[in-house]
Amino acid sequence: MNGERSLRDKLVAEDIGEAIFALASEIYPICRSITGRGVRETLDAIGRHIKLKIHEVPTGTAVFDWEIPREWNIREAYIKNQRGEKVVDFARSNLHVMSYSVPVRQQISLAELKKHVYTLPDQPDLIPYRTSYYAENWAFCMPHRLLESLPDETYEVVIDSSLADGHLTYGEYLHRGETDDEFLLSAHVCHPSLANDNCSGVALLAHLAKRMAGLHTRYSYRFLFAPGTIGAITWLARNEENSRRIKHGLVVSMVGDSGGPTYKKSRRGDARIDRAVVHTLRHSGLTPTILDFSPYGYDERQYCSPGFNLPVGLFQRSKFGEIPEYHTSADNLDFIAPAHLALSYRLIAETLDVVENDLTYCNTMPKCEPQLGRRGLYGAIGGDKDAASANMAMLWILNLSDGMHSLLDIAERADLPFAVLLRTAQQLQHNGLLTITGDANQGAALSVVRRSV
Amino acid sequence: MNGERSLRDKLVAEDIGEAIFALASEIYPICRSITGRGVRETLDAIGRHIKLKIHEVPTGTAVFDWEIPREWNIREAYIKNQRGEKVVDFARSNLHVMSYSVPVRQQISLAELKKHVYTLPDQPDLIPYRTSYYAENWAFCMPHRLLESLPDETYEVVIDSSLADGHLTYGEYLHRGETDDEFLLSAHVCHPSLANDNCSGVALLAHLAKRMAGLHTRYSYRFLFAPGTIGAITWLARNEENSRRIKHGLVVSMVGDSGGPTYKKSRRGDARIDRAVVHTLRHSGLTPTILDFSPYGYDERQYCSPGFNLPVGLFQRSKFGEIPEYHTSADNLDFIAPAHLALSYRLIAETLDVVENDLTYCNTMPKCEPQLGRRGLYGAIGGDKDAASANMAMLWILNLSDGMHSLLDIAERADLPFAVLLRTAQQLQHNGLLTITGDANQGAALSVVRRSV
Amino acid sequence: MNGERSLRDKLVAEDIGEAIFALASEIYPICRSITGRGVRETLDAIGRHIKLKIHEVPTGTAVFDWEIPREWNIREAYIKNQRGEKVVDFARSNLHVMSYSVPVRQQISLAELKKHVYTLPDQPDLIPYRTSYYAENWAFCMPHRLLESLPDETYEVVIDSSLADGHLTYGEYLHRGETDDEFLLSAHVCHPSLANDNCSGVALLAHLAKRMAGLHTRYSYRFLFAPGTIGAITWLARNEENSRRIKHGLVVSMVGDSGGPTYKKSRRGDARIDRAVVHTLRHSGLTPTILDFSPYGYDERQYCSPGFNLPVGLFQRSKFGEIPEYHTSADNLDFIAPAHLALSYRLIAETLDVVENDLTYCNTMPKCEPQLGRRGLYGAIGGDKDAASANMAMLWILNLSDGMHSLLDIAERADLPFAVLLRTAQQLQHNGLLTITGDANQGAALSVVRRSV
Repeated sequence: MNGERSLRDKLVAEDIGEAIFALASEIYPICRSITGRGVRETLDAIGRHIKLKIHEVPTGTAVFDWEIPREWNIREAYIKNQRGEKVVDFARSNLHVMSYSVPVRQQISLAELKKHVYTLPDQPDLIPYRTSYYAENWAFCMPHRLLESLPDETYEVVIDSSLADGHLTYGEYLHRGETDDEFLLSAHVCHPSLANDNCSGVALLAHLAKRMAGLHTRYSYRFLFAPGTIGAITWLARNEENSRRIKHGLVVSMVGDSGGPTYKKSRRGDARIDRAVVHTLRHSGLTPTILDFSPYGYDERQYCSPGFNLPVGLFQRSKFGEIPEYHTSADNLDFIAPAHLALSYRLIAETLDVVENDLTYCNTMPKCEPQLGRRGLYGAIGGDKDAASANMAMLWILNLSDGMHSLLDIAERADLPFAVLLRTAQQLQHNGLLTITGDANQGAALSVVRRSV
Repeated sequence: MNGERSLRDKLVAEDIGEAIFALASEIYPICRSITGRGVRETLDAIGRHIKLKIHEVPTGTAVFDWEIPREWNIREAYIKNQRGEKVVDFARSNLHVMSYSVPVRQQISLAELKKHVYTLPDQPDLIPYRTSYYAENWAFCMPHRLLESLPDETYEVVIDSSLADGHLTYGEYLHRGETDDEFLLSAHVCHPSLANDNCSGVALLAHLAKRMAGLHTRYSYRFLFAPGTIGAITWLARNEENSRRIKHGLVVSMVGDSGGPTYKKSRRGDARIDRAVVHTLRHSGLTPTILDFSPYGYDERQYCSPGFNLPVGLFQRSKFGEIPEYHTSADNLDFIAPAHLALSYRLIAETLDVVENDLTYCNTMPKCEPQLGRRGLYGAIGGDKDAASANMAMLWILNLSDGMHSLLDIAERADLPFAVLLRTAQQLQHNGLLTITGDANQGAALSVVRRSV
Repeated sequence: MNGERSLRDKLVAEDIGEAIFALASEIYPICRSITGRGVRETLDAIGRHIKLKIHEVPTGTAVFDWEIPREWNIREAYIKNQRGEKVVDFARSNLHVMSYSVPVRQQISLAELKKHVYTLPDQPDLIPYRTSYYAENWAFCMPHRLLESLPDETYEVVIDSSLADGHLTYGEYLHRGETDDEFLLSAHVCHPSLANDNCSGVALLAHLAKRMAGLHTRYSYRFLFAPGTIGAITWLARNEENSRRIKHGLVVSMVGDSGGPTYKKSRRGDARIDRAVVHTLRHSGLTPTILDFSPYGYDERQYCSPGFNLPVGLFQRSKFGEIPEYHTSADNLDFIAPAHLALSYRLIAETLDVVENDLTYCNTMPKCEPQLGRRGLYGAIGGDKDAASANMAMLWILNLSDGMHSLLDIAERADLPFAVLLRTAQQLQHNGLLTITGDANQGAALSVVRRSV
């Protein structure tokens, strides 16, 4: 206990922001989609940090109401004007081609071309991000100014893509803890060069998994790197039984910008993960936005579908769709920064710390207050800079540790940071004034409880 | 479903405001009280629109703690000055005579007369409305200015009324629906020439009943036109057993002015009718006033007495007692208008639509989201002007249709208009993505459910 | 009933503020601590008003995690300068000596003396109040200006105190009511010359007990005058079984100043005492501060420890620690006043009235409203200055008296003063419209209920 470090302390490192940023930068240029080589390259990059298990699911496999689509790959794509100049080139930005565009190679008029072009008239310098996974089509995306500058002539359009039977690919990493109960951490890997959405989330979880290796935890932590929607659906379809082990979960996306933090609660609304994140954010000194669940968003849509109803929330910095950079070429490496990534990482690590240590203690001397002065407990804490709150923490823990209140319950009622309560509870336990009676998350007594975390 | 119209659409008609106003105008001049010819004439007028069942309950009949009083009728009444001029004449306004005034015919001094006169010093041009049902007395009501102008001389006062054994009269109309469960709609018919209070409510319910004829509904709708307090008590005393069928109810009064809308909740406070009205008003674009139940008001006092505790609320425009016209001669036909009546009618029809269609659906594909694009459901709705909310409605319905949430439950949580949810649910049901599992109001599965409404 | 006076009316008297002030003034000069002659002299003074039972508990007795300490007594104490002048003299203020100071008699330098002196640099004219019950030490407390004026010379310091085996002393008074269920009223008697904290509370409770003598009450009232913390712990240790009889309780301290009123809820938060005090204060016309329970404060800390969890709140005027006079020589007889004491007394008496009379009635005519006019009930109340609220009170009581709502439940929902509801309920009961079905606080039917209170 003396000098014992919390899970958060063990997870956080000085250079964590830079490390996450480096991995995000490495995978940023890759052209990802819901299937294809880009996903595999991304998982390979992650695999250089953690021992990732790769799953390949064949085209045509039924996953609930869906079917694994054909695999999409692309080599090159461009629009050439009459002078043979590539006015648009996939090699310069993979956002230029609508994801899942079918192959095309033809000479067309400007008027005809325009039927296959997406732009953002209100943000005329940016390339939009567009997809058409389930309706066969092709299109280019480009800055509106560029489209307006194109003279009325004939263009050669080439999309050298392929749509063929293949596989959907996803990666999984399991950190085994003391119990089989799992904490799911999920990031979508289907977006091409969008730095915040979601190179940031992918890289953050990869480094979280990496730093967790070797640490003792109570929960097992499952990290899932899968394409959005169809990937989460595929995982759920293949892990229906195992999904019941998930006791808490977070979808992690857009964690590299300076906004938020934003948390969208699980469908349950009062799950322990919801309370743990809300508590962490409220004591962060930041100005978090807490949103109730809604069925629109990221993969929490699938995890929180009524047939699963898992306790999984969404952690972000800015809220998706509410920033001008969202789903445009402005979501690039300039939009994210190591400091923002480090803060997101720290907030998630603190949340894990809460969930890991949210135990229910019992005051061994519940009749009147124990004589703390005699045990030097006031003194022991007196020199601490958190002395005042630690003294109150001690009184709150002793008062509410009746077997009915977990540490998080007490933290909420006392309006004190969980970390202060945890440190104080460990001190009281060390002095024989507390025993552990159960795990707030499982409602069951822990037969073996190790406080090494 | 295609082109299928909701109950509200079937009930509302272009000229409904004018029709209600015409009937209110027709019954406005009648001198009503809690018994007597005025009530019968009023019910006759209603009976020309719907097949009303008239009940006559003899004087002296015990109804719970009360007794049917003697029947009151009045032929003429006036105050004549020494020049033989009628300074006050019942023929000009039936408000001039306090309701239930005993007969009088005598010469009296001004000083003596004043003991039998009610005025409103703060509204000196208006005649107040006064009654004395249960204490034998007589009085005239007049403008304060008129009273002040009367010279100190001898007056002939004549009230040619009668108080004799007779009957209390009320009218009932039952629209039979698919089930015996009833929706009670109740209006008091005991006030004389007060247009808003309650010619408006009487005429509105008469036309609602008229337009409901021939329509298929799930609930049976009971329309009650009875004198206030003693009439509701009489009906409850004679229908104690049947009252248990009432699953929802509204007392309707003062629905012709431009104020409100105002809803006072039932004693239960969270009855389905309370939630249906609150939802309807909150999505009306108006600025409704929602009041908690209190035991002072209209006949909801009786319906919500502890021995019945029926789920009956009070629907009004302006709140009773809070407008200067209340219970004065200013509550005349100029105070109400077809447009206000039409809006009140529409709000009530929308509430009925909510209650009728508040079913609990079950998502047939509860594990992950179904693939809506493949079914053309995004597209099908895309052209709709309510597209955005309909898309969200679709996601909300699928997410919450787990057999535990009715459409109204979902509407409240999604903060979307019930009508949008209903239309969307019908579309999803048509596509096999929803089945109906029960009736939110009855907590029982519906063996037969017809969606023709 | 006619002219029947409430418990509050019987308890309150015109000169009650002066009487409490007189007793507070009498005990103010006594040097109290958690043990010793000062406590006994204080209890003697109380005992001249009520028949107090004195308990003496020997040094060394184990009370839960604590032990009765040695008894502390002090005869004299001073600091003499080189001219033989007493620059500090215990005879002038007993705050000058830190409570439980061990004996000392020596010549020391100013530098050495300063290690044993407490002052308040921010309040340089005041003497602080300090204690060291469980760590052996000695100290003087003095105005900061005085300390600063002391020349650098040798001083003679004398504390003629004794710490020896003896007893902890507390006093108890039980007013026997109709039942064995108890209402605990507790005041700490361990502070020396601090008028508000807590001569005020001690004197108030003594006079409350005195005036209660001979009155019929439903509850038994236990008055406890004991040293803070160790006294409450001692009482609980010796009355563990009996403590279960405590159905409501108040710790009373600092009730003589002009602040507040302040109420800190019991740990339960929704105990009947919490609701009774909150109701009383909200209808007092004052601007009360209602605080949630926290485990820091007075003896409610012990009563609300998890092994007891008694429904005991804390009643104060200003909140402890939040006024500059707190624990200084400025908390003297000028700081408290008869008017403030009288108001505190009245608020507590009103609270007792609520708890005593919080019965659950049953409307004997629950179907529709009974005919109140016929019974003259509107009239009976009409002349009353509280007529409007009494009429509403009548309707609320009849509407909610279904055996599920106590008078306090009704008062909260109706937002009417409890006293109005009580008077009205008694009138309705007298007219046969109500019967008593139970005691809200005990959830049990009262076999014998006397309304003489």
